[in-house]
Amino acid sequence: MFEFSLTARSGRARTGLLLTPHGEVQTPLFMPVGTLGSVKGISPQELQEIGSQIILGNTYHLLLRPGPERVQRLGGLHGFAAYPGPWLTDSGGFQVMSLGHLRRISEEGVVFQSHLNGDLIELSPEKSVWVQEALGADILMAFDECPPYPASREYMRDSIERTLRWLERCLRAKTRPDQALFAIAQGGVDLELRRLSTEATARFDTPGYAIGGLAVGEPKEGMYPAVELSTRLLPERKPRYLMGVGHPEDLVASVGLGVDMFDCVYPTRTGRFGYALVPEGRMNLKLSKHLDDPNPIDPGCDCYTCQHFSRAYLSHLVRAEEMLGLRMLSLHNLRYLHRLMESARAAIQAQAYGEFAQDFAGKRFGPEV
Amino acid sequence: MFEFSLTARSGRARTGLLLTPHGEVQTPLFMPVGTLGSVKGISPQELQEIGSQIILGNTYHLLLRPGPERVQRLGGLHGFAAYPGPWLTDSGGFQVMSLGHLRRISEEGVVFQSHLNGDLIELSPEKSVWVQEALGADILMAFDECPPYPASREYMRDSIERTLRWLERCLRAKTRPDQALFAIAQGGVDLELRRLSTEATARFDTPGYAIGGLAVGEPKEGMYPAVELSTRLLPERKPRYLMGVGHPEDLVASVGLGVDMFDCVYPTRTGRFGYALVPEGRMNLKLSKHLDDPNPIDPGCDCYTCQHFSRAYLSHLVRAEEMLGLRMLSLHNLRYLHRLMESARAAIQAQAYGEFAQDFAGKRFGPEV
Ligand SMILES: [Zn+2]
Ligand SMILES: [Zn+2]
Repeated sequence: MFEFSLTARSGRARTGLLLTPHGEVQTPLFMPVGTLGSVKGISPQELQEIGSQIILGNTYHLLLRPGPERVQRLGGLHGFAAYPGPWLTDSGGFQVMSLGHLRRISEEGVVFQSHLNGDLIELSPEKSVWVQEALGADILMAFDECPPYPASREYMRDSIERTLRWLERCLRAKTRPDQALFAIAQGGVDLELRRLSTEATARFDTPGYAIGGLAVGEPKEGMYPAVELSTRLLPERKPRYLMGVGHPEDLVASVGLGVDMFDCVYPTRTGRFGYALVPEGRMNLKLSKHLDDPNPIDPGCDCYTCQHFSRAYLSHLVRAEEMLGLRMLSLHNLRYLHRLMESARAAIQAQAYGEFAQDFAGKRFGPEV
Repeated sequence: MFEFSLTARSGRARTGLLLTPHGEVQTPLFMPVGTLGSVKGISPQELQEIGSQIILGNTYHLLLRPGPERVQRLGGLHGFAAYPGPWLTDSGGFQVMSLGHLRRISEEGVVFQSHLNGDLIELSPEKSVWVQEALGADILMAFDECPPYPASREYMRDSIERTLRWLERCLRAKTRPDQALFAIAQGGVDLELRRLSTEATARFDTPGYAIGGLAVGEPKEGMYPAVELSTRLLPERKPRYLMGVGHPEDLVASVGLGVDMFDCVYPTRTGRFGYALVPEGRMNLKLSKHLDDPNPIDPGCDCYTCQHFSRAYLSHLVRAEEMLGLRMLSLHNLRYLHRLMESARAAIQAQAYGEFAQDFAGKRFGPEV
């Protein structure tokens, strides 16, 4: 029901095939984020048309509303949200720290205040697994603590050990055989702690592993060594998921280090802010220079947006805050990351990932075009 | 290039075929409103899939941004907004009164302050036609004054006469032979003034006529007699367009009186507020009773929303203010009005419009379900 096999390698980059109960996906891949059970503004049909393979749902948000039991009664995320392909849910831990008002963290779990109405809510390894089983995703994530950046070494070490004990409790709490639970290694950018956490985590024979605790505000030069070490220490024949990373250059670099899966709100969020991802960098559609430009965002893109609309029209919609503009930029940006991963897979299969990464870097112009 | 022929009658209701340079449309019909050049949240492809036949653009909004010359350079509304079918533009007069801060109204025209940046802008019959020629729609509307409700008889009479002089100026200013200009009759709900305006307007041999100055806040019982009188006075072989009317019951009643065209922001606006149009009335998706309902909004609807999503999911999206929910309700509501007009056309062709209208009324339950 859940299997992962490597299909090609180029350097440390690899392609793989991941079988889930709701379909097979090709790695490396990018997962759009369906926070509350919808990828903001995008329909399930569009997700399938642009090559999305697996959607991430946020346990924290779905726990608050509409509630896990309701989602379960309505057919789990697959039925409720009408996206029939594979889903992955996170554990809720990360949003508790970043969105909820964390009230207490103890061996038992965390108590937080809902950001919606202030209700006190408890989340523990057992409860997170229970919620995720009700949501019904194909892949569940272990309930971990993702310490803020920066945090003291002492705090980090305690947190890593607690996260390992929580992982054990998650695995004991899990009851559904049709769902795969991925463990998460922590350790921030401290390579010694990263090694400690990753080695200990890898001893649990879970069907996949996540590299957590990165992209939380640390300097970028700290992230790559931590990713590099992680992929060296994680088992070769299991999928590796770098959480919360979605900048194109980070995807290309991390695939080169052997990462298989990514998720991030970046493509949809930056789209809602009026930015389009292009090979040269990030195009700011709010700039007046685009107002008279009859060209599509990216002549090389096959998405509906680029096939139908000019920069001029999109720029007008973005400036007027028209919903169609935000929707069309989000669609293009998701397609851009999916195309990037399709090209990466093709390059790996052709044993030419190095050239691909070089070519990608050579086209980049700067942060904003 | 522009022709209208009646194809069937049932009582005073009629079906017709309207030829425009960008395609042929079947009346009676409802026009979605593409205020700033987009129907809020809906793509051109979706508009075509749900049976939209002609889209309305607002001259006032498009004059302020992106500006008529820019739209013209980018291929007119058909090219700029990538909706290749027929367009209609209003004259801008109505929004000047309702949105702009009107500063002066004189024989020459109006001066108003932009609601965006306070700029003083002048609009006259000549300028409105010039803007609409640049926007490039298939059907233009004459620049009229739509007096507020209530207004004194004296003011109304002066306004009607000025509007007739403005109509003459519009027709003189018009240069493009590939665009049809519709005249607009005013008169509010005062039947004597309505007759005066409609008879005088009908003397101008324009390719179509609009019934203006209704649905501006007057009591509903005043609207139907004014529509009834208008359709008796307007030429039989020209299309009749009732402006700003989009409530389903008003469409059914007005088609029965011989109206051919409608436009209104109602279906998209009420969708963004969480309401779905259904045969029984208006479904408030914010009500908690829908949160566990696995049924579609309307089992009889063929739209994407009803084919894929439950009331439960849509209710969740609406409560969470997720963009997909607003988009999906807008899509359904537009499809609802298009289906209503499709059924009306079929009933007229079957000489059974009376039964259709009765059947429609019999299903209605109340304002909210
Ligand atoms: Zn694109
Ligand atoms: Zn529907």
